[in-house]
Amino acid sequence: MPLARTPEPPYWAVIFTSLRTPVDDAGYAQTADEMEALAAQVPGYLGIESARGAEGLGITVSYWASEEAIAAWRRQGDHLAAQRAGRERWYRAYELRVARVERAYGFSRE
Amino acid sequence: MPLARTPEPPYWAVIFTSLRTPVDDAGYAQTADEMEALAAQVPGYLGIESARGAEGLGITVSYWASEEAIAAWRRQGDHLAAQRAGRERWYRAYELRVARVERAYGFSRE
Repeated sequence: MPLARTPEPPYWAVIFTSLRTPVDDAGYAQTADEMEALAAQVPGYLGIESARGAEGLGITVSYWASEEAIAAWRRQGDHLAAQRAGRERWYRAYELRVARVERAYGFSRE
Repeated sequence: MPLARTPEPPYWAVIFTSLRTPVDDAGYAQTADEMEALAAQVPGYLGIESARGAEGLGITVSYWASEEAIAAWRRQGDHLAAQRAGRERWYRAYELRVARVERAYGFSRE
């Protein structure tokens, strides 16, 4: 997964950090892929970055043009079902933070 | 690494996403640990969450009480040296985003 290519700020970030249960890795991975593909279809979606470390902490940051775009994604039907499954099966704990990106700086070797 | 325990919003997040070079894993890991410990000493530091996935994308989100706290950390001497080493050796590319956390929601099985 490359770095997300986002426009000049301001825009919005949803920072989702989580700890998994040991349950249903395959179902979780499949749904995570489906949700990434679905999110990309929401108007105002700008990109996503995701990593899960060896110690079990996962971080997914999705980027959005507006709070309205975030609200639309939050209410999307298949996403609501995935949120429920996450609380019932996949996550031991999570924190979701909605933040307004004010400044950004990039570096690239190329 | 557990989830960061942050106060009620508003507060600030620095979202640092990066792709590593294949160079100097040991030096990188040691400096990353040192920087986490140093950041925690800066007034206004609230917490940190970090993950690097199998595909090489790393995400570190640090949380801060104010923009002034972020600026103080950015200018810290050992951190400036680590930033230089990052551009010279460790990172193929990175993006650093400064964002104001407006809302947060948590879930925990306990």
